[in-house]
Amino acid sequence: MTRRRQIYEGKAKILYEGPEPGTLIQYFKDDATAFNAQKKGTINGKGVLNNRISEHIFTLLGTIGVPTHFIRRLNMREQLIRQVEIIPIEVVVRNVAAGSIVKRLGIEEGTQLPRTIIEYYYKDDALGDPMVADEHIACFGWASQEEMHDIADMAIRVNDFMCGLFAGIGIRLVDFKLEFGRFFDNDYSRVILADEISPDGCRLWDMTTGEKLDKDRFRQDLGGEVEAYQEIARRLGLLPEGENMVLDLDKHRKSKGK
Amino acid sequence: MTRRRQIYEGKAKILYEGPEPGTLIQYFKDDATAFNAQKKGTINGKGVLNNRISEHIFTLLGTIGVPTHFIRRLNMREQLIRQVEIIPIEVVVRNVAAGSIVKRLGIEEGTQLPRTIIEYYYKDDALGDPMVADEHIACFGWASQEEMHDIADMAIRVNDFMCGLFAGIGIRLVDFKLEFGRFFDNDYSRVILADEISPDGCRLWDMTTGEKLDKDRFRQDLGGEVEAYQEIARRLGLLPEGENMVLDLDKHRKSKGK
Ligand SMILES: Nc1ncnc2c1ncn2[C@@H]1O[C@H](COP(=O)(O)OP(=O)(O)O)[C@@H](O)[C@H]1O
Ligand SMILES: Nc1ncnc2c1ncn2[C@@H]1O[C@H](COP(=O)(O)OP(=O)(O)O)[C@@H](O)[C@H]1O
Ligand SMILES: [Mg+2]
Ligand SMILES: [Mg+2]
Repeated sequence: MTRRRQIYEGKAKILYEGPEPGTLIQYFKDDATAFNAQKKGTINGKGVLNNRISEHIFTLLGTIGVPTHFIRRLNMREQLIRQVEIIPIEVVVRNVAAGSIVKRLGIEEGTQLPRTIIEYYYKDDALGDPMVADEHIACFGWASQEEMHDIADMAIRVNDFMCGLFAGIGIRLVDFKLEFGRFFDNDYSRVILADEISPDGCRLWDMTTGEKLDKDRFRQDLGGEVEAYQEIARRLGLLPEGENMVLDLDKHRKSKGK
Repeated sequence: MTRRRQIYEGKAKILYEGPEPGTLIQYFKDDATAFNAQKKGTINGKGVLNNRISEHIFTLLGTIGVPTHFIRRLNMREQLIRQVEIIPIEVVVRNVAAGSIVKRLGIEEGTQLPRTIIEYYYKDDALGDPMVADEHIACFGWASQEEMHDIADMAIRVNDFMCGLFAGIGIRLVDFKLEFGRFFDNDYSRVILADEISPDGCRLWDMTTGEKLDKDRFRQDLGGEVEAYQEIARRLGLLPEGENMVLDLDKHRKSKGK
Protein backbone atom coordinates (compact mmCIF):
# COMPACT_ATOMS: atom_id res chain seq x y z
CA MET A 1 0.00 0.00 0.00
CA THR A 2 1.36 3.43 -0.90
CA ARG A 3 1.62 5.89 1.96
CA ARG A 4 -1.29 8.35 1.97
CA ARG A 5 -1.01 11.94 2.95
CA GLN A 6 -2.68 12.70 6.27
CA ILE A 7 -4.74 15.87 6.11
CA TYR A 8 -5.90 16.14 9.71
CA GLU A 9 -5.98 14.12 12.89
CA GLY A 10 -8.88 14.92 15.18
CA LYS A 11 -10.08 13.50 18.46
CA ALA A 12 -11.94 10.54 16.96
CA LYS A 13 -10.98 10.37 13.30
CA ILE A 14 -8.16 10.89 10.86
CA LEU A 15 -8.61 12.38 7.41
CA TYR A 16 -6.39 11.22 4.55
CA GLU A 17 -6.16 12.49 1.02
CA GLY A 18 -8.58 10.50 -1.13
CA PRO A 19 -7.92 8.66 -4.40
CA GLU A 20 -9.41 11.47 -6.49
CA PRO A 21 -9.34 15.24 -6.12
CA GLY A 22 -12.22 16.42 -3.96
CA THR A 23 -12.33 13.20 -1.98
CA LEU A 24 -10.99 12.23 1.42
CA ILE A 25 -10.70 9.05 3.41
CA GLN A 26 -12.17 9.22 6.87
CA TYR A 27 -10.52 6.78 9.29
CA PHE A 28 -12.40 6.01 12.53
CA LYS A 29 -10.18 5.64 15.60
CA ASP A 30 -11.08 4.01 18.91
CA ASP A 31 -10.10 7.16 20.81
CA ALA A 32 -12.81 8.72 22.93
CA THR A 33 -12.78 12.15 24.52
CA ALA A 34 -15.31 14.04 26.61
CA PHE A 35 -15.70 17.39 28.33
CA ASN A 36 -13.71 19.24 25.70
CA ALA A 37 -10.99 16.56 25.70
CA GLN A 38 -10.32 16.87 29.44
CA LYS A 39 -11.28 13.21 29.70
CA LYS A 40 -9.57 10.81 27.31
CA GLY A 41 -9.81 7.10 26.76
CA THR A 42 -10.14 4.27 24.30
CA ILE A 43 -13.21 2.23 23.46
CA ASN A 44 -11.92 -0.88 21.72
CA GLY A 45 -13.71 -1.39 18.43
CA LYS A 46 -15.64 1.89 18.57
CA GLY A 47 -14.13 3.07 15.30
CA VAL A 48 -15.31 -0.01 13.47
CA LEU A 49 -18.84 0.35 14.81
CA ASN A 50 -19.06 4.09 14.17
CA ASN A 51 -17.80 3.66 10.61
CA ARG A 52 -20.53 1.09 10.01
CA ILE A 53 -23.33 2.98 11.82
CA SER A 54 -22.46 6.26 10.13
CA GLU A 55 -22.37 4.58 6.73
CA HIS A 56 -25.81 3.14 7.38
CA ILE A 57 -27.43 6.39 8.52
CA PHE A 58 -25.79 8.58 5.86
CA THR A 59 -26.86 6.14 3.17
CA LEU A 60 -30.45 6.18 4.41
CA LEU A 61 -30.42 9.99 4.63
CA GLY A 62 -29.23 10.06 1.03
CA THR A 63 -32.28 8.06 0.01
CA ILE A 64 -34.64 10.70 1.46
CA GLY A 65 -32.73 13.43 -0.34
CA VAL A 66 -30.50 14.84 2.38
CA PRO A 67 -27.17 15.51 0.65
CA THR A 68 -24.19 14.06 2.52
CA HIS A 69 -20.44 13.73 2.09
CA PHE A 70 -20.62 9.93 2.20
CA ILE A 71 -19.51 8.07 -0.93
CA ARG A 72 -18.78 4.51 0.23
CA ARG A 73 -17.24 2.48 2.97
CA LEU A 74 -13.79 1.19 2.07
CA ASN A 75 -13.05 -1.19 4.92
CA MET A 76 -13.70 -1.75 8.62
CA ARG A 77 -12.41 1.63 9.70
CA GLU A 78 -12.44 3.77 6.61
CA GLN A 79 -14.92 5.45 4.36
CA LEU A 80 -14.54 7.54 1.23
CA ILE A 81 -16.11 10.97 1.55
CA ARG A 82 -16.47 14.15 -0.44
CA GLN A 83 -14.11 16.85 0.79
CA VAL A 84 -15.95 19.88 2.10
CA GLU A 85 -15.05 23.15 3.74
CA ILE A 86 -16.38 22.49 7.22
CA ILE A 87 -18.69 25.19 8.56
CA PRO A 88 -17.31 25.77 12.07
CA ILE A 89 -20.65 25.26 13.78
CA GLU A 90 -21.74 22.17 15.68
CA VAL A 91 -25.47 21.80 15.20
CA VAL A 92 -27.15 20.15 18.17
CA VAL A 93 -30.75 18.96 17.89
CA ARG A 94 -32.53 18.22 21.16
CA ASN A 95 -35.81 16.37 21.67
CA VAL A 96 -35.36 15.54 25.35
CA ALA A 97 -33.38 17.41 28.00
CA ALA A 98 -29.98 15.83 28.69
CA GLY A 99 -26.40 16.98 28.95
CA SER A 100 -25.51 20.66 29.08
CA ILE A 101 -29.07 21.98 28.77
CA VAL A 102 -30.01 20.30 32.04
CA LYS A 103 -27.67 22.49 34.05
CA ARG A 104 -27.82 25.60 31.90
CA LEU A 105 -31.59 25.93 31.97
CA GLY A 106 -32.38 23.94 35.10
CA ILE A 107 -34.47 21.24 33.42
CA GLU A 108 -34.61 17.71 34.73
CA GLU A 109 -32.80 15.12 32.63
CA GLY A 110 -35.27 13.12 30.60
CA THR A 111 -37.85 15.89 30.29
CA GLN A 112 -39.46 15.84 26.86
CA LEU A 113 -38.92 19.35 25.47
CA PRO A 114 -42.11 21.22 24.49
CA ARG A 115 -40.62 21.38 21.01
CA THR A 116 -37.41 20.36 19.33
CA ILE A 117 -34.54 22.79 19.89
CA ILE A 118 -31.68 23.44 17.49
CA GLU A 119 -28.57 24.82 19.15
CA TYR A 120 -25.39 26.07 17.55
CA TYR A 121 -21.93 25.81 19.06
CA TYR A 122 -18.85 27.50 17.64
CA LYS A 123 -16.44 24.67 16.82
CA ASP A 124 -13.30 25.84 18.62
CA ASP A 125 -11.64 23.52 21.12
CA ALA A 126 -9.59 26.31 22.66
CA LEU A 127 -12.78 28.22 23.52
CA GLY A 128 -14.57 25.06 24.65
CA ASP A 129 -17.10 25.14 21.80
CA PRO A 130 -19.21 28.03 23.16
CA MET A 131 -22.91 28.15 22.37
CA VAL A 132 -23.72 30.87 19.86
CA ALA A 133 -26.87 32.21 18.22
CA ASP A 134 -27.65 33.06 14.60
CA GLU A 135 -26.60 36.61 15.48
CA HIS A 136 -22.99 35.59 16.17
CA ILE A 137 -22.85 33.36 13.12
CA ALA A 138 -24.01 36.22 10.92
CA CYS A 139 -21.77 38.77 12.64
CA PHE A 140 -18.58 36.80 12.15
CA GLY A 141 -19.56 35.35 8.79
CA TRP A 142 -19.18 31.71 9.88
CA ALA A 143 -22.07 30.88 7.58
CA SER A 144 -24.36 32.92 5.37
CA GLN A 145 -28.03 33.43 6.16
CA GLU A 146 -28.87 31.16 3.26
CA GLU A 147 -26.52 28.45 4.50
CA MET A 148 -28.01 28.69 7.99
CA HIS A 149 -31.45 28.35 6.51
CA ASP A 150 -30.43 25.18 4.67
CA ILE A 151 -28.70 23.85 7.77
CA ALA A 152 -31.74 24.37 10.03
CA ASP A 153 -33.89 22.76 7.37
CA MET A 154 -31.66 19.70 7.02
CA ALA A 155 -31.23 19.40 10.79
CA ILE A 156 -35.00 19.11 11.20
CA ARG A 157 -35.24 16.58 8.37
CA VAL A 158 -32.42 14.50 9.84
CA ASN A 159 -34.15 14.64 13.24
CA ASP A 160 -37.50 13.55 11.82
CA PHE A 161 -35.88 10.68 9.98
CA MET A 162 -33.70 9.54 12.85
CA CYS A 163 -36.53 9.78 15.40
CA GLY A 164 -38.38 7.33 13.19
CA LEU A 165 -35.39 5.10 12.58
CA PHE A 166 -34.61 4.76 16.29
CA ALA A 167 -38.24 4.55 17.41
CA GLY A 168 -38.49 1.55 15.11
CA ILE A 169 -35.79 -0.24 17.09
CA GLY A 170 -36.98 0.73 20.55
CA ILE A 171 -34.64 3.66 21.07
CA ARG A 172 -35.42 7.22 22.07
CA LEU A 173 -33.41 9.79 20.14
CA VAL A 174 -32.66 12.28 22.92
CA ASP A 175 -30.29 14.58 21.03
CA PHE A 176 -27.49 14.54 18.50
CA LYS A 177 -24.79 16.69 16.91
CA LEU A 178 -24.33 17.36 13.21
CA GLU A 179 -21.63 19.06 11.17
CA PHE A 180 -22.12 20.56 7.77
CA GLY A 181 -19.71 21.66 5.07
CA ARG A 182 -19.54 23.55 1.82
CA PHE A 183 -19.23 21.28 -1.19
CA PHE A 184 -17.82 23.13 -4.18
CA ASP A 185 -19.12 22.35 -7.62
CA ASN A 186 -17.27 24.70 -9.97
CA ASP A 187 -17.96 28.22 -8.69
CA TYR A 188 -21.06 27.14 -6.89
CA SER A 189 -21.15 25.82 -3.33
CA ARG A 190 -23.89 24.05 -1.44
CA VAL A 191 -24.15 22.81 2.09
CA ILE A 192 -24.07 19.07 2.69
CA LEU A 193 -24.06 16.92 5.81
CA ALA A 194 -20.52 15.91 6.81
CA ASP A 195 -18.59 14.27 9.65
CA GLU A 196 -20.41 11.29 11.19
CA ILE A 197 -23.60 10.20 12.91
CA SER A 198 -22.86 7.61 15.58
CA PRO A 199 -23.34 6.95 19.29
CA ASP A 200 -20.36 9.28 19.83
CA GLY A 201 -22.51 12.27 18.95
CA CYS A 202 -26.02 11.08 19.78
CA ARG A 203 -27.85 10.36 23.01
CA LEU A 204 -29.75 7.11 22.55
CA TRP A 205 -31.85 5.68 25.36
CA ASP A 206 -33.53 2.32 25.40
CA MET A 207 -37.26 3.07 25.35
CA THR A 208 -38.17 0.40 27.88
CA THR A 209 -35.29 0.37 30.34
CA GLY A 210 -34.03 3.94 29.83
CA GLU A 211 -30.52 2.51 29.49
CA LYS A 212 -28.01 4.82 27.85
CA LEU A 213 -26.57 3.35 24.66
CA ASP A 214 -24.16 6.12 23.70
CA LYS A 215 -21.04 8.04 24.70
CA ASP A 216 -22.60 9.05 28.03
CA ARG A 217 -21.52 5.58 29.19
CA PHE A 218 -17.95 6.83 28.75
CA ARG A 219 -18.62 10.37 30.03
CA GLN A 220 -20.32 9.07 33.17
CA ASP A 221 -18.06 6.04 33.71
CA LEU A 222 -20.98 3.65 33.35
CA GLY A 223 -18.90 0.94 31.66
CA GLY A 224 -20.07 -1.28 28.82
CA GLU A 225 -19.33 1.33 26.16
CA VAL A 226 -18.56 -1.03 23.33
CA GLU A 227 -21.49 -3.29 24.22
CA ALA A 228 -23.80 -0.27 23.98
CA TYR A 229 -22.44 0.76 20.56
CA GLN A 230 -22.75 -2.86 19.44
CA GLU A 231 -26.33 -2.98 20.64
CA ILE A 232 -27.12 0.02 18.44
CA ALA A 233 -25.43 -1.61 15.44
CA ARG A 234 -27.20 -4.89 16.17
CA ARG A 235 -30.66 -3.30 16.38
CA LEU A 236 -29.95 -1.41 13.17
CA GLY A 237 -29.41 -4.80 11.57
CA LEU A 238 -25.70 -4.22 11.04
CA LEU A 239 -24.50 -7.18 13.12
CA PRO A 240 -25.70 -10.66 12.34
CA GLU A 241 -27.81 -11.90 15.28
CA GLY A 242 -25.63 -13.40 17.98
CA GLU A 243 -22.42 -12.22 16.39
CA ASN A 244 -20.05 -9.84 18.03
CA MET A 245 -18.32 -7.94 15.27
CA VAL A 246 -15.84 -6.03 17.32
CA LEU A 247 -14.63 -8.78 19.54
CA ASP A 248 -14.30 -11.08 16.55
CA LEU A 249 -12.44 -8.40 14.71
CA ASP A 250 -10.15 -7.81 17.62
CA LYS A 251 -9.34 -11.52 17.75
CA HIS A 252 -8.65 -11.43 14.05
CA ARG A 253 -6.38 -8.41 14.34
CA LYS A 254 -4.55 -9.81 17.31
CA SER A 255 -4.00 -13.18 15.67
CA LYS A 256 -2.54 -11.35 12.70
CA GLY A 257 -0.18 -9.58 15.07
CA LYS A 258 -1.52 -6.11 14.17
CA MET B 1 -46.88 59.79 53.87
CA THR B 2 -48.98 56.64 53.90
CA ARG B 3 -47.07 53.39 53.86
CA ARG B 4 -46.89 51.93 50.35
CA ARG B 5 -46.98 48.26 49.59
CA GLN B 6 -43.66 46.91 48.37
CA ILE B 7 -44.09 44.63 45.38
CA TYR B 8 -40.51 43.48 44.83
CA GLU B 9 -37.01 44.28 45.99
CA GLY B 10 -34.32 43.54 43.43
CA LYS B 11 -30.58 44.03 43.33
CA ALA B 12 -30.71 47.70 42.33
CA LYS B 13 -34.31 48.83 42.65
CA ILE B 14 -37.46 48.42 44.69
CA LEU B 15 -40.92 48.35 43.18
CA TYR B 16 -43.87 49.77 45.12
CA GLU B 17 -47.55 49.75 44.32
CA GLY B 18 -48.36 52.90 42.37
CA PRO B 19 -51.07 55.47 43.02
CA GLU B 20 -53.35 54.02 40.34
CA PRO B 21 -54.03 50.46 39.20
CA GLY B 22 -51.57 49.42 36.53
CA THR B 23 -48.85 51.72 37.82
CA LEU B 24 -45.80 51.11 40.00
CA ILE B 25 -43.20 53.26 41.67
CA GLN B 26 -39.63 52.32 40.83
CA TYR B 27 -37.20 53.30 43.60
CA PHE B 28 -33.49 53.41 42.66
CA LYS B 29 -31.13 52.14 45.37
CA ASP B 30 -27.39 52.76 45.66
CA ASP B 31 -26.73 49.01 45.83
CA ALA B 32 -24.46 47.59 43.17
CA THR B 33 -23.90 43.96 42.32
CA ALA B 34 -21.77 42.21 39.73
CA PHE B 35 -20.95 38.70 38.53
CA ASN B 36 -24.43 37.40 39.30
CA ALA B 37 -24.44 39.10 42.73
CA GLN B 38 -21.24 37.37 43.86
CA LYS B 39 -19.78 40.86 44.27
CA LYS B 40 -21.82 43.39 46.25
CA GLY B 41 -21.29 46.99 47.17
CA THR B 42 -22.73 50.47 47.37
CA ILE B 43 -22.15 53.39 45.06
CA ASN B 44 -23.29 56.45 46.97
CA GLY B 45 -25.71 58.49 44.92
CA LYS B 46 -25.93 55.97 42.07
CA GLY B 47 -29.69 55.59 42.49
CA VAL B 48 -30.24 59.32 42.13
CA LEU B 49 -28.15 59.47 38.97
CA ASN B 50 -29.68 56.35 37.39
CA ASN B 51 -33.20 57.60 38.10
CA ARG B 52 -32.36 60.86 36.31
CA ILE B 53 -30.44 59.27 33.42
CA SER B 54 -33.09 56.62 32.83
CA GLU B 55 -35.84 59.26 32.89
CA HIS B 56 -33.93 61.24 30.29
CA ILE B 57 -33.31 58.35 27.91
CA PHE B 58 -36.78 56.82 28.23
CA THR B 59 -38.35 60.22 27.60
CA LEU B 60 -36.25 60.70 24.47
CA LEU B 61 -37.06 57.16 23.26
CA GLY B 62 -40.74 57.98 23.72
CA THR B 63 -40.34 60.95 21.39
CA ILE B 64 -39.06 58.69 18.58
CA GLY B 65 -41.94 56.29 19.12
CA VAL B 66 -40.39 53.53 21.20
CA PRO B 67 -43.07 52.64 23.76
CA THR B 68 -41.74 52.56 27.34
CA HIS B 69 -43.06 52.02 30.85
CA PHE B 70 -41.90 55.47 31.97
CA ILE B 71 -44.61 57.89 33.07
CA ARG B 72 -42.81 60.56 35.14
CA ARG B 73 -40.11 61.06 37.70
CA LEU B 74 -41.55 61.63 41.18
CA ASN B 75 -38.48 62.65 43.15
CA MET B 76 -34.71 62.09 43.38
CA ARG B 77 -34.95 58.32 43.63
CA GLU B 78 -38.38 57.42 42.35
CA GLN B 79 -40.25 57.29 39.11
CA LEU B 80 -43.79 56.37 38.24
CA ILE B 81 -43.99 53.56 35.68
CA ARG B 82 -46.58 51.43 33.96
CA GLN B 83 -46.79 47.96 35.45
CA VAL B 84 -45.88 45.27 32.97
CA GLU B 85 -45.45 41.52 32.99
CA ILE B 86 -41.69 41.32 32.59
CA ILE B 87 -40.54 39.03 29.77
CA PRO B 88 -37.81 36.96 31.46
CA ILE B 89 -35.20 37.74 28.82
CA GLU B 90 -32.33 40.17 29.17
CA VAL B 91 -31.69 41.63 25.75
CA VAL B 92 -28.05 42.59 25.23
CA VAL B 93 -27.04 44.71 22.26
CA ARG B 94 -23.34 44.76 21.41
CA ASN B 95 -21.50 47.12 19.08
CA VAL B 96 -17.99 46.54 20.41
CA ALA B 97 -16.56 43.43 22.09
CA ALA B 98 -16.41 43.75 25.88
CA GLY B 99 -17.42 41.67 28.87
CA SER B 100 -18.52 38.08 28.48
CA ILE B 101 -18.21 37.92 24.69
CA VAL B 102 -14.47 38.60 24.93
CA LYS B 103 -13.82 35.33 26.74
CA ARG B 104 -16.60 33.26 25.19
CA LEU B 105 -15.60 33.93 21.60
CA GLY B 106 -11.97 34.90 22.06
CA ILE B 107 -12.26 38.45 20.73
CA GLU B 108 -10.07 41.24 22.01
CA GLU B 109 -11.82 43.80 24.18
CA GLY B 110 -12.52 46.94 22.21
CA THR B 111 -12.84 45.22 18.84
CA GLN B 112 -15.58 46.83 16.78
CA LEU B 113 -17.93 43.98 15.85
CA PRO B 114 -18.49 43.46 12.11
CA ARG B 115 -22.16 44.06 12.85
CA THR B 116 -24.31 44.70 15.87
CA ILE B 117 -25.19 41.58 17.81
CA ILE B 118 -28.35 41.03 19.85
CA GLU B 119 -27.99 38.41 22.55
CA TYR B 120 -30.67 36.97 24.81
CA TYR B 121 -30.11 35.80 28.37
CA TYR B 122 -32.69 33.94 30.39
CA LYS B 123 -33.35 36.14 33.45
CA ASP B 124 -32.82 33.66 36.27
CA ASP B 125 -30.34 34.50 39.01
CA ALA B 126 -30.19 30.90 40.24
CA LEU B 127 -29.05 29.74 36.81
CA GLY B 128 -26.67 32.69 36.39
CA ASP B 129 -28.69 34.22 33.52
CA PRO B 130 -27.60 31.72 30.85
CA MET B 131 -27.40 32.83 27.25
CA VAL B 132 -30.22 31.43 25.14
CA ALA B 133 -31.26 31.58 21.51
CA ASP B 134 -34.62 32.23 19.87
CA GLU B 135 -35.01 28.45 19.83
CA HIS B 136 -35.07 28.18 23.63
CA ILE B 137 -37.35 31.19 23.97
CA ALA B 138 -39.83 29.64 21.55
CA CYS B 139 -39.50 26.16 23.08
CA PHE B 140 -40.29 27.28 26.62
CA GLY B 141 -42.75 29.96 25.61
CA TRP B 142 -40.89 32.78 27.37
CA ALA B 143 -42.05 35.07 24.56
CA SER B 144 -44.03 34.57 21.38
CA GLN B 145 -42.44 34.81 17.95
CA GLU B 146 -44.32 38.06 17.43
CA GLU B 147 -43.08 39.47 20.71
CA MET B 148 -39.49 38.49 19.85
CA HIS B 149 -39.86 40.20 16.53
CA ASP B 150 -41.03 43.40 18.21
CA ILE B 151 -38.25 43.12 20.80
CA ALA B 152 -35.49 42.70 18.21
CA ASP B 153 -36.96 45.62 16.28
CA MET B 154 -37.07 47.90 19.29
CA ALA B 155 -33.61 46.81 20.44
CA ILE B 156 -32.16 47.94 17.12
CA ARG B 157 -34.05 51.22 17.25
CA VAL B 158 -32.87 51.88 20.80
CA ASN B 159 -29.31 51.07 19.74
CA ASP B 160 -29.43 53.41 16.76
CA PHE B 161 -30.82 56.21 18.88
CA MET B 162 -28.44 55.70 21.80
CA CYS B 163 -25.38 55.38 19.52
CA GLY B 164 -26.30 58.83 18.24
CA LEU B 165 -27.07 60.27 21.65
CA PHE B 166 -23.76 59.12 23.13
CA ALA B 167 -21.68 59.88 20.04
CA GLY B 168 -22.96 63.44 20.39
CA ILE B 169 -21.38 63.69 23.84
CA GLY B 170 -18.10 61.98 23.02
CA ILE B 171 -19.02 58.54 24.30
CA ARG B 172 -18.83 55.17 22.57
CA LEU B 173 -21.83 52.97 23.24
CA VAL B 174 -20.11 49.59 23.58
CA ASP B 175 -23.10 47.51 24.68
CA PHE B 176 -26.19 47.65 26.86
CA LYS B 177 -28.93 45.54 28.38
CA LEU B 178 -32.67 46.05 27.95
CA GLU B 179 -35.73 44.46 29.53
CA PHE B 180 -39.15 44.38 27.99
CA GLY B 181 -42.57 43.65 29.40
CA ARG B 182 -46.14 42.98 28.37
CA PHE B 183 -48.41 45.95 28.89
CA PHE B 184 -52.05 44.89 29.05
CA ASP B 185 -54.66 47.10 27.52
CA ASN B 186 -57.96 45.25 28.07
CA ASP B 187 -57.54 41.82 26.47
CA TYR B 188 -54.75 43.01 24.27
CA SER B 189 -51.08 43.05 25.22
CA ARG B 190 -48.14 44.73 23.60
CA VAL B 191 -44.46 44.76 24.38
CA ILE B 192 -42.95 47.93 25.81
CA LEU B 193 -39.49 48.83 27.06
CA ALA B 194 -39.24 48.47 30.86
CA ASP B 195 -36.69 48.51 33.68
CA GLU B 196 -33.99 51.18 33.25
CA ILE B 197 -31.26 52.43 30.97
CA SER B 198 -28.30 53.70 32.97
CA PRO B 199 -24.55 53.18 33.38
CA ASP B 200 -25.46 50.11 35.46
CA GLY B 201 -26.49 48.25 32.30
CA CYS B 202 -24.47 49.98 29.59
CA ARG B 203 -20.81 50.04 28.69
CA LEU B 204 -19.88 53.63 27.93
CA TRP B 205 -16.33 54.53 26.95
CA ASP B 206 -14.96 58.02 26.51
CA MET B 207 -14.21 58.34 22.81
CA THR B 208 -10.90 60.14 23.27
CA THR B 209 -9.39 58.59 26.37
CA GLY B 210 -11.13 55.18 26.30
CA GLU B 211 -12.00 55.68 29.95
CA LYS B 212 -14.82 53.49 31.22
CA LEU B 213 -17.75 55.51 32.51
CA ASP B 214 -20.02 52.68 33.65
CA LYS B 215 -20.45 49.79 36.08
CA ASP B 216 -17.22 48.17 34.86
CA ARG B 217 -15.50 50.64 37.23
CA PHE B 218 -17.19 48.71 40.04
CA ARG B 219 -16.77 45.25 38.46
CA GLN B 220 -13.07 45.83 37.85
CA ASP B 221 -12.35 47.80 41.06
CA LEU B 222 -11.28 50.86 39.08
CA GLY B 223 -12.70 53.32 41.62
CA GLY B 224 -14.43 56.60 40.79
CA GLU B 225 -17.76 54.93 40.16
CA VAL B 226 -19.98 57.81 41.16
CA GLU B 227 -17.77 60.33 39.34
CA ALA B 228 -18.18 58.28 36.16
CA TYR B 229 -21.98 58.14 36.50
CA GLN B 230 -21.97 61.87 37.22
CA GLU B 231 -19.88 62.52 34.14
CA ILE B 232 -22.50 60.74 32.04
CA ALA B 233 -25.30 62.76 33.64
CA ARG B 234 -23.30 65.95 33.20
CA ARG B 235 -22.59 65.34 29.51
CA LEU B 236 -26.25 64.52 28.98
CA GLY B 237 -26.99 67.98 30.36
CA LEU B 238 -28.62 66.68 33.49
CA LEU B 239 -26.26 68.32 35.97
CA PRO B 240 -25.76 72.08 35.93
CA GLU B 241 -22.15 72.79 34.91
CA GLY B 242 -19.83 72.69 37.91
CA GLU B 243 -22.46 71.27 40.21
CA ASN B 244 -22.22 67.96 41.91
CA MET B 245 -25.73 66.67 42.39
CA VAL B 246 -24.99 63.58 44.37
CA LEU B 247 -22.54 64.99 46.86
CA ASP B 248 -24.84 67.96 47.44
CA LEU B 249 -27.73 65.63 47.94
CA ASP B 250 -25.80 63.49 50.36
CA LYS B 251 -24.90 66.54 52.42
CA HIS B 252 -28.56 67.46 52.45
CA ARG B 253 -29.66 64.01 53.56
CA LYS B 254 -26.98 63.76 56.21
CA SER B 255 -27.81 67.21 57.62
CA LYS B 256 -31.41 66.08 57.91
CA GLY B 257 -30.23 63.08 59.91
CA LYS B 258 -31.41 60.54 57.35
N1 LIG C 1 -16.29 15.80 4.35
C1 LIG C 1 -15.38 16.42 5.10
N2 LIG C 1 -14.45 17.21 4.55
C2 LIG C 1 -13.53 17.85 5.33
N3 LIG C 1 -13.49 17.75 6.67
C3 LIG C 1 -14.41 16.97 7.27
C4 LIG C 1 -15.38 16.27 6.53
N4 LIG C 1 -16.18 15.60 7.41
C5 LIG C 1 -15.70 15.86 8.64
N5 LIG C 1 -14.63 16.69 8.57
C6 LIG C 1 -13.83 17.18 9.69
O1 LIG C 1 -12.90 16.16 9.99
C7 LIG C 1 -12.69 16.05 11.38
C8 LIG C 1 -13.08 14.68 11.84
O2 LIG C 1 -12.27 14.23 12.86
P1 LIG C 1 -12.67 14.36 14.39
O3 LIG C 1 -11.83 13.39 15.13
O4 LIG C 1 -14.16 14.32 14.55
O5 LIG C 1 -12.15 15.85 14.66
P2 LIG C 1 -12.42 16.89 15.83
O6 LIG C 1 -11.53 16.50 16.95
O7 LIG C 1 -12.05 18.22 15.19
O8 LIG C 1 -13.90 16.80 16.15
C9 LIG C 1 -13.57 17.10 12.04
O9 LIG C 1 -12.81 18.24 12.34
C10 LIG C 1 -14.59 17.39 10.97
O10 LIG C 1 -15.07 18.72 11.08
N1 LIG D 1 -42.59 48.29 34.36
C1 LIG D 1 -42.31 47.25 35.13
N2 LIG D 1 -43.28 46.46 35.65
C2 LIG D 1 -42.97 45.38 36.41
N3 LIG D 1 -41.72 45.01 36.71
C3 LIG D 1 -40.70 45.76 36.24
C4 LIG D 1 -40.95 46.90 35.42
N4 LIG D 1 -39.75 47.42 35.07
C5 LIG D 1 -38.81 46.64 35.64
N5 LIG D 1 -39.37 45.66 36.35
C6 LIG D 1 -38.68 44.61 37.13
O1 LIG D 1 -38.38 45.19 38.38
C7 LIG D 1 -37.13 44.76 38.84
C8 LIG D 1 -36.24 45.97 39.03
O2 LIG D 1 -35.37 45.78 40.10
P1 LIG D 1 -33.88 45.26 39.93
O3 LIG D 1 -33.17 45.69 41.17
O4 LIG D 1 -33.33 45.65 38.61
O5 LIG D 1 -34.19 43.69 39.99
P2 LIG D 1 -33.29 42.43 39.57
O6 LIG D 1 -32.39 42.18 40.73
O7 LIG D 1 -34.34 41.37 39.39
O8 LIG D 1 -32.58 42.81 38.30
C9 LIG D 1 -36.54 43.84 37.79
O9 LIG D 1 -36.78 42.49 38.17
C10 LIG D 1 -37.35 44.18 36.55
O10 LIG D 1 -37.48 43.07 35.68
MG1 LIG E 1 -15.41 15.51 15.74
MG1 LIG F 1 -32.19 44.51 37.23
